[in-house]
This record gives sequence, C-alpha cells and structure tokens, in this order.
Amino acid sequence: MKFVVVAGSTATARIEGISAAGADSAVMAHTPSADCEIVAYGQPVCSPVVPVSPSGCPTPAVVTRAVRELARFETVVVDAGLAEPTAAPTVTVGEESGRDVRTARAVPEAREIFTAAEEYGRALPDDELVIGETIPGGTTTARCVLAALGERRATSSSLPENPIALKQQVVGEALDTAGIAAGGAAGTPIAAVRAVGDPVLAAVAGLVTGTTAGGTEVTLAGGTQLCAAAALARHAGVDAPLSLATTSFLAADDTADVEGLASDLDLDLTITDPGFDRESHPALDAYVAGEAKEGVGMGGALALAERAGIPMTDIRDRVVTIHDRLLATEPRVEP
Amino acid sequence: MKFVVVAGSTATARIEGISAAGADSAVMAHTPSADCEIVAYGQPVCSPVVPVSPSGCPTPAVVTRAVRELARFETVVVDAGLAEPTAAPTVTVGEESGRDVRTARAVPEAREIFTAAEEYGRALPDDELVIGETIPGGTTTARCVLAALGERRATSSSLPENPIALKQQVVGEALDTAGIAAGGAAGTPIAAVRAVGDPVLAAVAGLVTGTTAGGTEVTLAGGTQLCAAAALARHAGVDAPLSLATTSFLAADDTADVEGLASDLDLDLTITDPGFDRESHPALDAYVAGEAKEGVGMGGALALAERAGIPMTDIRDRVVTIHDRLLATEPRVEP
Repeated sequence: MKFVVVAGSTATARIEGISAAGADSAVMAHTPSADCEIVAYGQPVCSPVVPVSPSGCPTPAVVTRAVRELARFETVVVDAGLAEPTAAPTVTVGEESGRDVRTARAVPEAREIFTAAEEYGRALPDDELVIGETIPGGTTTARCVLAALGERRATSSSLPENPIALKQQVVGEALDTAGIAAGGAAGTPIAAVRAVGDPVLAAVAGLVTGTTAGGTEVTLAGGTQLCAAAALARHAGVDAPLSLATTSFLAADDTADVEGLASDLDLDLTITDPGFDRESHPALDAYVAGEAKEGVGMGGALALAERAGIPMTDIRDRVVTIHDRLLATEPRVEP
Repeated sequence: MKFVVVAGSTATARIEGISAAGADSAVMAHTPSADCEIVAYGQPVCSPVVPVSPSGCPTPAVVTRAVRELARFETVVVDAGLAEPTAAPTVTVGEESGRDVRTARAVPEAREIFTAAEEYGRALPDDELVIGETIPGGTTTARCVLAALGERRATSSSLPENPIALKQQVVGEALDTAGIAAGGAAGTPIAAVRAVGDPVLAAVAGLVTGTTAGGTEVTLAGGTQLCAAAALARHAGVDAPLSLATTSFLAADDTADVEGLASDLDLDLTITDPGFDRESHPALDAYVAGEAKEGVGMGGALALAERAGIPMTDIRDRVVTIHDRLLATEPRVEP
C-alpha cells in the first residue's frame, strides 16, 4: 500500500474569499508545499509557513502525518505543479501551477500531466494506492470540472460557511470563457481540465487511470475534489471499482453532497469520524466547528488508522502533539 | 532516523574500463536512476534497465532495499544531478550531471549544490542520518578529490580487479587540467569538487555540513567515495563526530584502505559482513568474488539491520527474492 499526496497550485485560490487554506493569499501560495513537508517530515522544512486558516485552524496535513507516524505507511508526494518549492521528496508530473479558471486555458499542459501521471501509475508495483490532494482553491476548480462534465455540482469548502454564491459565479464565468456549456465536456476529461480545472485534478485522474489499468486497488482520499477526479477518470473510460474515503466533517457538509457524488460515480464510500468532539484543543476544535473538514488525504488516513486498529484517542493525542510542535516552530522566512 | 541516498552522474564513468556499475556505458547512464527506484519501490519503475555489472552482479541497491523492507526505515533520494530521469521521489539539489574530470570544471555548480544540500540538511528535523550514494565512476572522482585535498589516495572499485593504473592516469590528467598540485585544494573543498569532483560529493559534503551543524548524528554509508565526502566536510571545517559504515567486501579491498582513510579523517568505522559466502546464489556469489563490494548505502543498511537484530540469513533470503523478482521483470524500454 502506498499513500500518495498529489500537490499543486492554482491562481483560482487568489480570488478573494474562495479558500481558507492559509492565513492570507501570500501564505496560501506556500500551503501545499508546506503540507507536503509536514506529511514527509512532521514539520515544515524549507517552507516558510505553517499552514493555518485565517481563524487558526491547522492544516489537515497534521492529521495525515499523525496517522502516518502511528500506522507507518509509505507516502509519496506527486508534484503536479506547485507554485512554491517544497523540500519533500517529489515525483514531478507537471511543471506549472494552474491559472485562474476565469481566464482561458486554466491548465495548458493538462494532457502532459495526465499522461505522465498515468504512466507513473501504470508502472507502480503496489497492489493498493490511497490518493489525497493539497491545492488551495481546489474545491472551486472541482466544481467547474463537475459542471463541464455534466455531473452533480456539489462543492465542499475549507470555510465553515461555504461561499457557494461566489463559487457559482466563478463557475459561470469559467464556463463562459471556455465556451463550454454545462455538460459540454462530457466524455472529454482532458479538455475539461485544460479549460476549467487545475493541475492536481489532471494528475489524480491520470494516476487513477494508470493504476487501475494494472489492477491496483484505488482509494480516493478526500471530498468533492477527489470526486471530480473520479468523475474525470470515469469520463476517461475507467470502470474499475473505486473507493472514496472521507471524514465525518466533510460528510456532514450538505453542500458537498458526497453521498450523492459517490452514488453518481459508483464510488464505494467510507466515512471516518476521528472523534475530535470528545476533547477540547485548538488542534481539534476548529474541525468540530466545520473548518478545513478534509484535505491532504485526511479521510483516507483515518480510514487506514481504523483498518489498522489504531484507537482514535491515539490519533487525537498525536494530532495535538504535532500541532503544538508546529506552532512552537519559528517560521524560518517570512513569506 | 532517515536513510538518504544521494544520486548523480558524471561523464567520468564513460571512460572505458573505469566502472562496473552497468552492463555497458549506455546502460550505466541509467544505473543511479534505477538504483533509486529499486530502493524506493523494490524494482525499476520508469527506468528502462535493471542495473547489473558486465558479469551480471546485481546492483547493491538490492541489498539496501532488502534491509529496508525488513527494518522499515524511511528513505529519501537526493538528486544531485542525475543524467537520466528517475521515478523515485526526489529532493533536488543539483540540476546537471558532472563532466569528465579530465576536462575543465568537472562540477560548475559545485557551490550551489553544496549550499542547497547544506540548507536542506540544516532544516531536517531528524536526530540521525545515514547517507549513501549512487554514481557510476564515483570512485575515480573520489580519488581525484582526495588527491586535490592532499589526503590518502585510497580508491575502491566496483570491479574485482581495481584498474588502479588507469585511475592514477585519470587523476593525474584531472589535476593537470585543473592546475591543482596534490594537496593544492586543501582547505578549499568546494574548489576541489568544482575542479575534479562530482555532484554527489558536493551534495554529501553539504549535507554533512548542514546536518552536523544542528547536532544530527551522521553515518556515511559506503567506501572511499563517502570517505572523500567526509574529507570535504573536514576541509570545510566540520569537526563533529562522524561514522563510516561499510561492508566486509569493501574492507577486504586493500586498494580501498578504508581503515587508513577512517583513521586519517577521524571516522568511527563499522564493518558489517552479510555472510554471503554461507550460501550460493547468483545474487550473492559475485560479491564474494569481489564485485560491486559496496554502494547505494549497502554497508550502512547492513549496519542498521545488525542494530535492529535482523538475522543476516533473513537479509540474504530477501536479497535473493528481490534479485529474482528483478530479473523476472522485463525492462520496459531498451536503453
């Protein structure tokens, strides 16, 4: 089993009010790079920031790292197009971050990313892969892709109040600019990503296509972004069984409608509750209040913990330890 | 603890008769990239070759992978300048492979590689690091660097009969071209690497400098190449304790004189014998006959196995399993 985090950036995240994956937009550019370092090393290494939301909610990378330290699974970071450098060891499938979806061609190299990820996935010897993501702004690009493919336009958010009206407006502008009607890109997944997606969606879809071709079992670890990647894979002709593992926080979000998406896309759904409401600590409380919800493969990591029989109380303790260590770390450089 | 494999290439390996790290020079260009994939995944993934010597001796990456599977330590590949792509997750500290040491400026970006590796090393949170290498031709560049620094010119070889006369000639030409007398680069390690070294030496020296600055315990896993890297670190002013872990095969090589080098450079020496002579199998016999001897951190991996109490018979079984699996794998592309 290998746990893959696909990381990238999209300028879509810079739209005011669209994402909580960073205290402000300057910090947010570093969030996915820092997330990868936290998963790989337990703390930012070269990245100048510790990703927290504007209200201080720690990145879900902390939860994934906590499970990793206890379950000791192997992780691989796939760089689909990070805007800022990361010191995490990476497999590179894309060189450029994505553009604002409201401009033409959000991911010019969508096909190259898809193909590189597909080839990598096909070559991997693992019998099981769990795939998560980190890309601020990714729920909005996911919604754009679901719309372009004609799938259910469900969308989660890292914010407690999902800015749905803003996202709808962005999706409308994106499809208009691309000249794609709702459902107009059905059956042409690469065209959908190129026009209105992000590099992570291209890479995850390619990875799913390549790994399932060789019979690898794939679990998509996340919410609506991973559903959009699954939709792309389905539209690329993948009919292998696929699983979706997400958190109870994401599942409780009606705007995400992950059950509807899983049903539409024939995804075997697992929801794991880490019981953050049983204790009170800044590392846990924000999740209970509906922030972050999911990301960096959190739901998949929690499902692996449950499968390995690791008690959630141990996970919570480890989350608190890592969180406190992170906040004690002085960022090395101001962004 | 983290196990780091520093990988790179040098055109010095193309000198006829200098290296056994590949069946021929076209294959040899892929050897370090394939080694990294074997350590990371247990087999080549995108690399088109399974590295074996001209006589069929399997790469020591097989031994390191075998120990990794049993001891379950974390590995990181640091790319100091690979000539061919690798699908292993990498931290990149250098962009270009090294030039033939007989031409001017073997490693033009020696300082940049050293500094990037030093910064990465300083930022790593680990309390212990084991550092190995994979770079065909590396024993020759190591001898050049030892000569330039005025250190003992001991040199091992991946060939059973070390082509010492050829190497002496190459070292002489390299120093002549660089205009450096023996010992002329003492105290200027970066100048030594830039003139007559290779990218891996620059990266290992930087990594040692950066990690020891933060109090991390460092074990250099290998033979004369790692000794040359240690010499560079000593000449850069590192006076922290350093260990050297190598194999009994390397220690048995008088031309390597690893005991003399360890003593000169104040390295705490550990020699581990995997007992390959107790069984007969193509995966083991070539080592007993004096081929390969060391590489890809083999000696350090064996020392970790011993420390973890893993019986050498288990290691040998696993080496045979991985070797047989590798040879059963069809290379995907002819080089």
